[in-house]
Order: sequence, then C-alpha cells, then structure tokens
Amino acid sequence: MRRDDGRPPRLEPSADAWSLVETRFEPELFGKCESLMCSGNGYLGLRAAHEEDYAGQRRGLYFAGSFGRAMEGESVELPNCPDPAAMEARLDGERLDLLRLAPLEYRRALDLRSGELARDALVRTAAGRTWRLRHARFASLADPRLIAFRFEARPLDGRGSVELRFGIDGRVANAGVQHFAEGEQRVLGRSILRYAARAPGSGFELELSLVSGLAGASERAAERPGHPRFEVDRRRIVREDSFAIERGGVLVFERFVLVRASSGALDATEPVALPDPGDYGRLLAESRNAWSDFRESAPDLDTDALDDQLALRVALYHLRAMTPDDGGSSSIGAKGLTGEGYRGHVFWDAEMFMLPFLQYGRPELARGILEYRVRRLDAARRRAAARGYEGAMFPWESAATGDEETPERAGLDPHTGNLAPVWSGLKEHHVTADLAWAVAKFREATDDDAFMDSGGAALVFEAARFWRSRAAEGPDGALHINDVVGPDEYSEHVDDNAYTNYLAKACVDAALELARAGHPAAPAEAELERLRDFSARIHLPEPRGDGVLPQDAGFLSLPELDVSAYRAAERKQAILREHSREDLNGLQVLKQADAVMLLFLMPERFTREVALATYRYYEPRTVHDSSLSPAIHAAVAARLGETDEAYRRFIEAREVDLGPRPHSSDDGVHAAGFGALWMALVMGFGGFRVADGVPRFEPRLPTAWRGFAFPLRFRGRRLRVEARGGGARIELLEGDPIEVELYGRRARLARGEAIDGKR
Amino acid sequence: MRRDDGRPPRLEPSADAWSLVETRFEPELFGKCESLMCSGNGYLGLRAAHEEDYAGQRRGLYFAGSFGRAMEGESVELPNCPDPAAMEARLDGERLDLLRLAPLEYRRALDLRSGELARDALVRTAAGRTWRLRHARFASLADPRLIAFRFEARPLDGRGSVELRFGIDGRVANAGVQHFAEGEQRVLGRSILRYAARAPGSGFELELSLVSGLAGASERAAERPGHPRFEVDRRRIVREDSFAIERGGVLVFERFVLVRASSGALDATEPVALPDPGDYGRLLAESRNAWSDFRESAPDLDTDALDDQLALRVALYHLRAMTPDDGGSSSIGAKGLTGEGYRGHVFWDAEMFMLPFLQYGRPELARGILEYRVRRLDAARRRAAARGYEGAMFPWESAATGDEETPERAGLDPHTGNLAPVWSGLKEHHVTADLAWAVAKFREATDDDAFMDSGGAALVFEAARFWRSRAAEGPDGALHINDVVGPDEYSEHVDDNAYTNYLAKACVDAALELARAGHPAAPAEAELERLRDFSARIHLPEPRGDGVLPQDAGFLSLPELDVSAYRAAERKQAILREHSREDLNGLQVLKQADAVMLLFLMPERFTREVALATYRYYEPRTVHDSSLSPAIHAAVAARLGETDEAYRRFIEAREVDLGPRPHSSDDGVHAAGFGALWMALVMGFGGFRVADGVPRFEPRLPTAWRGFAFPLRFRGRRLRVEARGGGARIELLEGDPIEVELYGRRARLARGEAIDGKR
Repeated sequence: MRRDDGRPPRLEPSADAWSLVETRFEPELFGKCESLMCSGNGYLGLRAAHEEDYAGQRRGLYFAGSFGRAMEGESVELPNCPDPAAMEARLDGERLDLLRLAPLEYRRALDLRSGELARDALVRTAAGRTWRLRHARFASLADPRLIAFRFEARPLDGRGSVELRFGIDGRVANAGVQHFAEGEQRVLGRSILRYAARAPGSGFELELSLVSGLAGASERAAERPGHPRFEVDRRRIVREDSFAIERGGVLVFERFVLVRASSGALDATEPVALPDPGDYGRLLAESRNAWSDFRESAPDLDTDALDDQLALRVALYHLRAMTPDDGGSSSIGAKGLTGEGYRGHVFWDAEMFMLPFLQYGRPELARGILEYRVRRLDAARRRAAARGYEGAMFPWESAATGDEETPERAGLDPHTGNLAPVWSGLKEHHVTADLAWAVAKFREATDDDAFMDSGGAALVFEAARFWRSRAAEGPDGALHINDVVGPDEYSEHVDDNAYTNYLAKACVDAALELARAGHPAAPAEAELERLRDFSARIHLPEPRGDGVLPQDAGFLSLPELDVSAYRAAERKQAILREHSREDLNGLQVLKQADAVMLLFLMPERFTREVALATYRYYEPRTVHDSSLSPAIHAAVAARLGETDEAYRRFIEAREVDLGPRPHSSDDGVHAAGFGALWMALVMGFGGFRVADGVPRFEPRLPTAWRGFAFPLRFRGRRLRVEARGGGARIELLEGDPIEVELYGRRARLARGEAIDGKR
Repeated sequence: MRRDDGRPPRLEPSADAWSLVETRFEPELFGKCESLMCSGNGYLGLRAAHEEDYAGQRRGLYFAGSFGRAMEGESVELPNCPDPAAMEARLDGERLDLLRLAPLEYRRALDLRSGELARDALVRTAAGRTWRLRHARFASLADPRLIAFRFEARPLDGRGSVELRFGIDGRVANAGVQHFAEGEQRVLGRSILRYAARAPGSGFELELSLVSGLAGASERAAERPGHPRFEVDRRRIVREDSFAIERGGVLVFERFVLVRASSGALDATEPVALPDPGDYGRLLAESRNAWSDFRESAPDLDTDALDDQLALRVALYHLRAMTPDDGGSSSIGAKGLTGEGYRGHVFWDAEMFMLPFLQYGRPELARGILEYRVRRLDAARRRAAARGYEGAMFPWESAATGDEETPERAGLDPHTGNLAPVWSGLKEHHVTADLAWAVAKFREATDDDAFMDSGGAALVFEAARFWRSRAAEGPDGALHINDVVGPDEYSEHVDDNAYTNYLAKACVDAALELARAGHPAAPAEAELERLRDFSARIHLPEPRGDGVLPQDAGFLSLPELDVSAYRAAERKQAILREHSREDLNGLQVLKQADAVMLLFLMPERFTREVALATYRYYEPRTVHDSSLSPAIHAAVAARLGETDEAYRRFIEAREVDLGPRPHSSDDGVHAAGFGALWMALVMGFGGFRVADGVPRFEPRLPTAWRGFAFPLRFRGRRLRVEARGGGARIELLEGDPIEVELYGRRARLARGEAIDGKR
C-alpha cells in the first residue's frame, strides 16, 4: 500500500459523491490535496497539509485582501501566515510518520457539505502496537474567525501513551520570503498560546489564539503530571501535552484557533469568545448549517459518472470557500485562497469566469466582486492617463491598490537561458472591456440599479472612453485596435484581435445604452457622439469564406505546428521548454480559447455555420495550456449540439484539477476553471442564455448523463431547470411571475408553475 | 532497520577512529548529523543535510563574517545562503526516499582526514529492483571557494534509468527569515546554473555557479535525448538530467559549486576557473593534502576507548573547519559555521576556549582571532564611553561591527508566560578581562611582539582602563566590582564575582607589566598610578576556613537545590522549565564552571587544598547546562590528580555533541566544548601550563588510556609530548633549544633531544 508504483492514484468521489476522497497516503499528491482539500470560508484559506511534517508539504494560511510587499524587488502578494495547524504526535514514544509506519488503513476525505476534512488511519507502530487515529478540521463558515481541529487516538492493544507537540509557527514564508516581523509570543493562563505579528510591508496585523485540551468525549485518558509544557523559540511558540490512555480508552484532543486580522470586513478589535475543548461538534454543526445555501445552489446530475458530479460540487465548494464577503475590499485571486500561484492576484478570471455562478446563485457576493473594481476606478483612470489614454484602463493583474502587478519577466527562454519578457501587463487590454461586459451582465441578471448608480455605470462609461481613445483610424477609414494580446497569450502584439474588438464595441454600446436610458453619470453629448462614432466605425473581423473567424489580422496566415504532443504532456506549458514565446508568436498555436471565447459570450452574434467552422478550425490548434480553455470549448460545443465533443472537453475541464496530473494544483486550484465548469453545465448543456431580458434554455444531455438539474437566481426569482432524456422543465420556485423560453417556446410562469419541453 | 525504536543510535567511530560514522538512516539524528558532519573550510560551512528532502532537515550554507540584519526587529546574524546541495534522484522513475525505501545497507561517514562526507546505501525500489548508491561531498580546504558533490548509481538487476533534479534554491532562510533579495538566475551555455543574490541588510553579495555532468568513470551510462532540461521558478533555478544505464553499468555524476562572496579574505572579483565533471577525485586529493597539517596537530590516544580518540579528532576537525583565515575580519561563532544557534555570534568562547588549541597549533590563525578584537577596539571604546566608563568595554555577544548583539529577552518565564529578560549583554563584563588574558597568553605562547605593537598591547591597556573605571571603593576601603554576571549565568547581579575580580586584576597587571617593559602605547604615569592603585586595592575573594573559594559575595549563603535530576535531563536547561532565572538567582545552583574556571586559568594562584575543596563544593551544585563546563572540570580534576573524576567529566564533555542526546547539536556544534576538550587533554591530563615562560608538564593517565601523545607549538618550537604508564617524555622536534619542565624537573632541550620523567 505504501509503495510508490509511479502511478499516483486519483482523488475519488465518495459513494454519494459529496466527499472528495484520498484513498491512500501518497506524497506525490501532497500539493494537489493541500489545494483541493483546502479549508476556507471566503475570509481565510488553510491548505490541507497533514498535521505531521513531511518533505514536500507546503503549509499555507492566507487572508483575503491581506496583500503586501515583503521586500524590495518582490511582488505584492498574499502573505503566508503563521501556521497553527501542524501537530506532531508520538504513540508510545514513537513519532507518527505515515512514511515509516505504512498505514494499514487510510482515508482522507473533504466533506463538501460541511467543509470538514477528516483523515482516518489505522497504523502499527515499530513496537508492533496498533492505533486507530482520526485527524479532523474545518474553517467555520458560521464564524470566519474560527479554525477547529480534532484528534482522536485509540490504542487497540491495551493501554498506550500519546504525546502531542503543536503551537503557532511563524517560520512559514512565501517561497522563502518572510512578510512578518518577529511576533509577540505569550502563554496565557498556562494554557492558551497567543502569537501576534505584523507585516511591515502592508501594515497587515494578525493575532492567533490557540485554545486546546482534552474533550469530554475522551475515555480513560488523562494528562500526565508536569504537562502541558510550553516553549518559545524564534518565531515559534509550542505546547507539549502528554497523555496516558487505559485499556479500551480513547483520547479526544481538540484545538481551536481564533483569528483576528486587520484585513477583510470582520472587526479585528471586536473581542471574540474562545471556545472550550469539547465544542468541536457544536461548532461544526453551525458551520455545516451555514453551508446549506451552497448545497441548494449545487447542480445535480443523474449519472453513473460520479466524477462528473463530484467535480461540479468541488468546483462550487471552492468558489464559495474563496469568495470574500467584504463588500469589495478584496476580490477572488486566480487560485482563490488555496495557494501562492499568481501571488493571489486578481485577473479577468474573477468577472468572466467566477462571477456568473455567483450572480445567478449568490448575487450579493457577486456584487462585492464588482465593487472591488469600482473602488479601484481611480487607479484605472490614473493608469489610462499615464499611458496617454482617456477614461479608465484596468490592470491585467491587480492586488490591493488596483495598480498593475504583472511581473515583467517570467520563465526561462530556452534559447538565451535568461528570463523571458511577459507582455500581458502591457498589452492584454481586453480586461477593460471584460469588466464592462460583466457589469452589464450582472445588471441584466439582477436588475441591481443601485449598484449601477453607485459606480457600476461609471465603470462602463470610463471603460468606453478608454476604448474610444485606444482605437486608431486606419487607411481603410475604420477604427482599429492594434498591438494587443488577446485571451490567447501565445499570440502577442497582434492587431484587431477579434475578441478584443467585439468586446470593446460591446462595452461602448453598453455605455450608449445606459446613456439612452438617461443615466445621470452619462458623458456629455459631444463625448457620446464620439462613442457612437466608435461603435459605428470599429473594425469587426468578419468570417472567411469558409466561415472561420480570424483570431486577429495576421493569425490565419502563419505557419502551423502539430501541438498534439504538448496537449498530452504531463505538465502544462511544456511547449515553452522547446519554443520561446517569440517562436510561438509566429505560429498558429493557441494557448486557450480566443475566438471560441467570443463565440461563447455572443451566441446570437454568429451563425451556427460560422460558429461550427470557427470551433473546428481553432480547437485542434489549441494546446489548452490555460485552465480557462476546455470548459469554454465544452460550453460552445454543447450549444452547437456537438454533445460528444462537448463532453470530451467537459472531462478535460474536470481533470484540470481532479485529473491524474499529480502536480496540477500544487500552487493552488484553478478557480476560473471551476467557474467555467459550472458555465459548461448551465450555459453549455443547459443552453442557458439571456436575450432581450428573457432567460432562455436549450438543455442537451451528453450520453453519459440520464439527466441534470440546477437552480438559478434571476432578477429576484428562483428558477429550477431540469433536463431528462430528450426534454426539460423550467420551474419558478420563488418570486414574481416571469417570462422564460425553453427550446424556443416562450411561457410566462407564476410561482410554482413550470414549463415542459422536448427538443 | 528502518524502525524507530525510540532509542536513536549513537554516532560511532570507524575502526581507525578517523571517521565519524552513522550506521543507519535515522531521522531523529538529522540535526545532529547536519551539524557534526558539516563540511567546512573556515570560509564557508555547509550543513550535512541529505541530498534528498526529508521533513525535519535544516539545510544551511553560511559564510564567515557575512553578518547582516534581515529585517527590522531581527538580530544581526549569518544569513543562510541559497542551497546548491539538494538533489532529487529517481530510480526507474521512482523517487529515492530512504524513509519509504528502507535501505538494505546504509553507512554515512565523515572522513576527518579529508573532510569528505560519503553516504553509501543499498536500496530496493518498490518495483523490487536493487541499486547501490553513493553520495559524496566536500568543501575544499585547498580552494575555499569550491564545494564538490559526487553521485554514483549502480543498478544491480540489469539496466536502469536515473533522473536527477537539482539546482540552486534561494528559498532557504534563517528560521523563516529571508536575508536575500530575489536573485539573478541564468543558464549559461545550456549547462551551467548561475544564481547571484544580494542581502540588502548588509550588502553581502553572493554568486553561485553550478557545473555538473557525467564523469568519465561512468560505464554504459548515457544522457537521454531532450536533456538536460532547465527551469526557473521564484528564487529557484533547476536542472534535470535523465540517464539510461545498461546492464553492468554505473552512473557517476559530479556537481561542482563555485562560490564568489563579498565577505572574507578571498577576492570576489577574481575570476575562478570552473572544474569539469571528472575532476572530483583530483580536487579531493588537493583538499586532503591541505588537511595534512591538521592531522599532524591532532593528539593520539593509545586506548581501546575509540570514542575518546574520535571525539578529540572531531573536535579538532571542526575547530579547523570553522576558523577563518581572513586576518581578523571575522572570528569564530559559538556554533562555528555549522548552524544558526546564537545567530553565529562571537563570545568569550573564541578567545578562552578555541584560541588555546590554535595558538599552540596554528599560531597564525590564532592571531586572526585576536585581530578581530583589535579591529573592533573603537566600538569597545564607544561602548565604554556610552556606559560611563573609561577605556574599552567589549561586547558580550558580537557580530560584524563589534557592537553588543545580545538579545534583551529569550526563553519563556514559566511563571508569567512571557519572554524572560537576559542580563548577559548588560552585565557579563568579564569578557573584557578575558580578552586581555587571551592576548597575554597568546604573546606568552608566540613571542609575537609585532601583534602586540599592532594593537594587542593597546587592547590590554584599554581593558585595564575599563576595569579601573568599573571598580568602586567600598566602606572597607577596597575596590569592588558590583552587579555583574560571572561565567555562571544562573547567578545574576552579583558583587565581587571571584572569577571577574581575579581576571580584572590579571588584566591590569598585564598592562602594568607591558608598561614596565616600556611599551610605547603605555598610558601616562598618572594613569599608570591609578592602575597600580587598582591592582593593590582590588578586592580578591579569599577562601573560607574550609578552603572553599566564594563564587561571589552572596552565593555561599543562599539556599540549596538538588540539581541531579536536571543534570540527567534529556535536554539542556530543563531546569528553566520549572524555575525562572529569578528563582535560580536565589539558589546555590550553577549553570557552569565559575570558581572552577578560575582554578583552571590560575593553577599557581591557589593551593591544592583550596582547589580541591572548591572543586568538591561547586561541582555537585553545577548543572553543567553549558558545554563549556564539563571539560574545564575534567582539566582541573586531572591536574589535582583526581583522574577518575577527571575522566568522568571528560566523557561528559565528549558527549556534549557526540553523546546520545538526539537533539544536542541541532542548532550547531558546541565549538567552545571542542576547544575545551583539547584543553582537558593537553592542560588537564597533560598537565601543560606555562610559568615564567617555561612550558611545564605533569602528564597523568586515566585508567582507560594506555597512553597519549600530542604536538605543541611554543615560541617557534615544535614539541611532542608523550605519556605512557606512570611516565612521560617531552621531545623538541623543531626550533631553537628551549627549557622545559617535566614533573618538576627542568631540562634544556636542543632539537631532537627529549626528556623522560616518571611521576
């Protein structure tokens, strides 16, 4: 069982597909599990490193919005905070080490309904004695300040002794970079450990209090005299307990970590009551209850493909666990709070990939994501001005301030042996159109005019101004957007990227629409005139004769490259080991959906023929080196009725994090991929889209599914969509009557009414 | 073999006692071996962490004198530098992990004659295939810039494949604190890794170049196509090689790390030639040759107690490996360059414990240690002035500048739960007398007047001035030194500490002696008069009626405490878990030799009766919580003819680092303990002392030894001392005729002559 046969096992669904399960102790999967089994509540994220220390583990505790710069020359990032989770256990004096004591039984499972992570193991010590052990933990969704741990030890061969060594360890760092000054360490009342630390780079302050002790559930277990013992060391405060367990007894030891941080919406000054050993069960019940609305928002599949069902639940668990509820002081990073990938920075991912699930499920949380941008509108205005543009130019990568945080160089140029330049920060401008798009879609889904008035509209107007100033008139008399990077980051410095131009027009049109509706923040007539001119003259790439939409002005005339080997490679972006970004720039090689992303966003805009031809042309040329890519392809293929192709891509999307690649998620989960997976189901197989304010559905089933159902919030209503066999039903569960469309048939539903349809 | 039976094995001597051997892979001993098997050449120290990563390992690479402050609130310390040693190996695709693949054979040995550390292992993979592996390394004493690594892999069941992953890792830090800014990472010529980094806190600059490749000694082994591969990541540059080995073949892969640092005497700008794979053997031979003079200076024991012989050789190996040769820009820290204990700071240890071995063996290196102090005389002058004293007041703990670096608080007060105050930095003044003592003894041993003229004498004069200003006249009309901490740090704020007062007088007398000899730097007559007055009136505690010398004015009247339990405790300073420093201050409890240290330094000064009574009184009250303590007791007991008691303490001293305590040396070896071990032999059992410029010897053998011999440099001569049975012989091997004394009999020896004597 403990053998490393080179084929690391996959993570599996439990029988009810409500738990993500690791069935054997596998060091190759440390990073993957740390991220995928991460505990989180939108306020903090705690990576699922084992309590014991093992080489290759990366402990992590991160707080939403706690960005800071550790030292000169470093990027702004989320600091990795002092660790309260590690705990060394000795059984009859022997250190618990699952590498040495190959467990006879092993199961680690994250319960997606409660967020509890529990590890059960049966081990035999070198001395030949058997123990049943359980380590459990959760970060409370009911009180985001609380992280709870529970340890159960049962000696099966008579009496035994257990020594525990744990505490708060300020030695953790971000890849060796320390954000915090030496903390203040105290032991209160010979019992509670307290560690307070401050990050000079940001002023972020953190105080951890660790309460621990024997729980009432213990039987025939008692602390030994002379304990607990305490120790302080550099950046570390430690407690040692020692217990004797009689025959037939069990030790239950609980630890509670109370957090007070100067980030987020929680008031760090408000005193928090410390729980008592024994409270774990009650506190878990409270948290499980807080998770209930997430359970209601999760789609259900009727299928034997439990991996599909699990993937959707894992995706939604993480989307909830990583979404802050702080009214816009922070947003969602590309890895959420599950790892240090991209330094916790915010990309278009948040609005274009995670936002849809939120706005159709938890609109109030979705609004916070957009508020984050509104609050940083001034930074975007400054950036536009600095670059010689008008309006607001949003950063490709941002953190706390809204300034551009994209590194200038990254990765090794295989030819020169030096770091390669990164152009996204300078050239990937479509994000400013994406945000306006997201605001418009959010309003469409929520009718939240208050948000529009409190900055949403201003964002759209400022974005539109930017695009007008960004475009340049060409010899053909049309307006062109030159020298950009589109979503496909393997194509740099391109002109008239289709995605960018279409989205820019949509942005300007949204501004004009708001103005027509007489929004008070609308620009003056002269400026509106310029916007109308932009909308009229902006060059929109048209499909070729064969229906293929050109990704950009030059792409279709570039030489081609067979990318199948790189698509199958063990690791993402393996292509960059052999080709420099400059090489790729000269080839018809896509990192991810670009024109296809456009098809996804604007189904009405292109004929089925164009969409099909475009999809079929680009997909084989796409390496899918971005987690954003496969699910978008799945959605587009599903809407085109290509359900087999769609399902293939859906599986590919599901496997981005949950697939066999052992190191797929070491630096954190792929948050946008999770959002995209939900979109593949709802907008792809569910065929959900909104046109003229009417929600429309054209559900289609892949052969692997007998049916699916998902809830949807739309303008204050709660709808339920169910697909089965060749048909579907839309039901209005809550809210005022509303018009919906199923398979092209319109119906007005009152509460409790449903419409059924067949394809 | 891989079982953890709770009784970690000891490190053992090889049959010839020239190697320190670990006979089984034992995680409990990681820290101990990392320190005791540390590679070093006085310029750098590389901890002996395994090439593979294991939890609990602490990698460390330190450069003499590279002190800096990483961030505000941190102490100045030796930065832990980017690691070039780690290497992951995969055998037939399976990761080499000695915790999982319990080795069938295992032996790790540090050869004390060459400094080469070699680990031999026979492992069976999960796939059931057997491999013979050897990992070897050394830090060259011939070219201190060079660290070399060699890896040998032999598949015993036919063909096999080996993948290697290694590089330079800038993520290492000092207990989670990072000194270096992100480094510059390059791959030169698709082969050489280069990592350059700078520590903003100190300006210390470091460049590591890593050359690697297949050595000619390989047989039927070839690199696979597509390799080597390279990768850069945050603070890390990685190379991956992949080899196919045919049946009967062997892979020999060598790595050479060339260091250029802005610290130390080596010119960082001078270009260094990079070795080629295959050069390992030649370079090792050069280093082994450079170690030869160390081998000559090592004492020989004729005994079956190989542990005694080994301990002396380990001690001398480390003393050499940690002694810089940079003419005083740096000195020797309490842990040398083997760990982060005491942050690499310099204490009285260097002059009072390590210096004697150096001055009687390698006088030119010894001079550097004193130059370090001379160069920091101004800082000591400033410190004296700042504290309202005259002359020079040296810091208790110092680093680069010579300023006081002792932390103000450390350890947990068991009663309050807060950090406890540390008084050494403010009150442990004897160091200023110790340095003058060391200078006088160095001159006595070397006749190095040039050193005296270039600052040695100035140091003595300034120290004497300090003591005159430090003393205060009491009601008895005598001069007293109040409120100090003596060598026994469990007694704080004491008056007239015997050690301090006697050493202060010796310091002033040494100054007066230099003045009498008409040294040009001598102070004016008025000041000399004040020094004479000090010498005449300083209060020197006298023995009580029973012969016991009072450690200080109040000690003998304090309540007593049975310390036997703490002496036997698994860990040092266990007493501080139950008693606060304040508690101990009110008890007759000694941390270490204090009055006994005085007996050791001034054998002439006290009668045998006083010495015996004093020793017998204090020893049982001493916890020996300092590594400086047991060997000094051994030396004093041996000179008193108590050879059994002396041998017991000698073993205790030997076991400070080499004994069974698994974590004795995690933070580094006990450098002063090593120096003291040599003194226990030479000055204790050898009975060596110098009086009126004449070296005197009264060798005595513990029953466990048949004999011993050691070389000694004295005033340009090379002497050899040999003891056997009840007698001994002193031989002049080199240099002008000299008068020596053996068992009270004087003789003038010409080169090649010897004197024999019996007790």
